[in-house]
Parts: sequence; C-alpha cells; structure tokens
Amino acid sequence: MASSKETKIIDKTIRDIHKNLVKYTKGTLRENNLTMPRFLVLWYITKYQPVNMSFLHDKMHMANSTLTVIVDKLVDDELVKRYRNPKDRRIVLLELTEKGDKKLCKMLDIRQNFLEKALVNLNDNDKEKLIMLLGTVLGNLEELLKEGENNNE
Amino acid sequence: MASSKETKIIDKTIRDIHKNLVKYTKGTLRENNLTMPRFLVLWYITKYQPVNMSFLHDKMHMANSTLTVIVDKLVDDELVKRYRNPKDRRIVLLELTEKGDKKLCKMLDIRQNFLEKALVNLNDNDKEKLIMLLGTVLGNLEELLKEGENNNE
Repeated sequence: MASSKETKIIDKTIRDIHKNLVKYTKGTLRENNLTMPRFLVLWYITKYQPVNMSFLHDKMHMANSTLTVIVDKLVDDELVKRYRNPKDRRIVLLELTEKGDKKLCKMLDIRQNFLEKALVNLNDNDKEKLIMLLGTVLGNLEELLKEGENNNE
Repeated sequence: MASSKETKIIDKTIRDIHKNLVKYTKGTLRENNLTMPRFLVLWYITKYQPVNMSFLHDKMHMANSTLTVIVDKLVDDELVKRYRNPKDRRIVLLELTEKGDKKLCKMLDIRQNFLEKALVNLNDNDKEKLIMLLGTVLGNLEELLKEGENNNE
C-alpha cells in the first residue's frame, strides 16, 4: 500500500525539523566544549543511570575504545562520576554529576530557545492547533505501538 | 531566557514522534533481516554515495571492526556493492545496489504506512493545517540556520 501524499509530506517535514534541530545542536555543542558522541553518551547515561560500560556499548553500538576515551573525558570534565557498585564491587557504574546534569539541561534549553525563534510567526491559535494535532499523532503512534507489542506477545 | 511552555511541549512532542517512528522502524527492520546499525549504514551510503570506509567511520563514529562486519554482511546480502575507484585503484568505494535501494525504499514505505495509520482521525482540514504549520516551522528553522552560518563566516 502506498501512503498518501499528505503522509509523505508530514513524514518528511517531521524528519527535516528533527534533522535541523540536530544540526543546530551540533553547532552549539562545539561552543560548549562537547561533541555529538559525547553529548549522546551524556544523554544515554542520564536516561538509564546508573549504567555500566557494556550497557552503553550495547546500546550505542560504539567501539569500546572510543567509548572509553569519551567517558574518560567526561569524567575529567566532572560531568560524569564513575564508582563501584556497592553490591558488587567488580561492576563500575556511571552517573551524571550535578554539573553534567546542568550541562545537559543547558543544551536542551538552547535547543528550545532556537525552536522558539522558529515559532515566532505562529499566533497563539496556531500554536494551540499545532500542539493539538501533534499530540493526536503522537497519541495514535503510541497506541499503535502498544497494540503491536500486545499482538507479538 | 527560558522558553515558553508551548515551545517545550512542541519540542518534546516532535522528539517523541520521531522516537516512536524509530522504535517502530527497529521492529520492522528485524523482520526484514536488518538491524539498526545495518540500516543506518545503508542510509549513510545512499546519502553520500559513492563513499569509502573511512568516510563512514568518521561520519558514524562506529568502530572500524564493527563497520567492516556490517559492510561485509551488506555486500554478502547484495544490498551494497564494493568496487575500486577507477581514478585511484587504492580507494575502495561503496554504493547501494538496486536491491539495496529497493530495500531502503521499502523500509521508508513501511514507516510512512505506519504514520498514515496515526493520521487516520485527522480530517483533510487538519492535515492541511498540520502541513502548513510544520512547513512554517521548518522554513523558519532553515532560515535561522542559514543566518547563523552567514554570521559565522
């Protein structure tokens, strides 16, 4: 089944918006002494923390050697803390420091401020409508995914 | 400057829509004998082809050993062809085969069909409005990025 022209446009527009936000983020990362891989490692740590190296390796499909260099640098910069699991001292865990947390929030703020500039010529009604429509799409997607998971059980 | 509540919601919704589409794609990849890293390699090749291995390595931040395994598999599956650059036979180039191209299109179609299902309760007016609003946001983002680039020159 071929999808409608409207769907293709909406799909491409959402992807392009996402791509442009990522592109902008890359630029601001450089100014904040971060790179995309380092930013992504911070992001994954905060999402699943505490995590160990092999979890990050599996999740991010990044070489162990690359990952080690990145995490070492994040630890040096005091954005990530590394400590032994008290329950099993063979396991080394990673967690964001308060400084790392602030850095990540700052990067998110910068992204949102950028998006805000791109919403400047939308009036309140437009914004409300956009939120409603995107919310509907998101709700449907989540519903469809849930159904799919249940069917696979 | 803190961004408005509306911006935060729009940012989060767009990210979540993207995330859900990626999550769904992961499931369909498995059914199509692909994995996310293999899909991404196909994607990067088609975007920049012909490419060599070190370009992919730099672009994707993937270990050379991992990348070699992935590309070997893609070549075995006849999704990618590998050949020597006629102008400099030391350089090995990668390109999608017709089969690889079809596979990638198929994956995109599946994604769009999924999104289409999520648009089912939007009427034609809603879809038109959504396209218009997202298009405005995208146009503004592209404009802002271009300005930023010009300022950095």
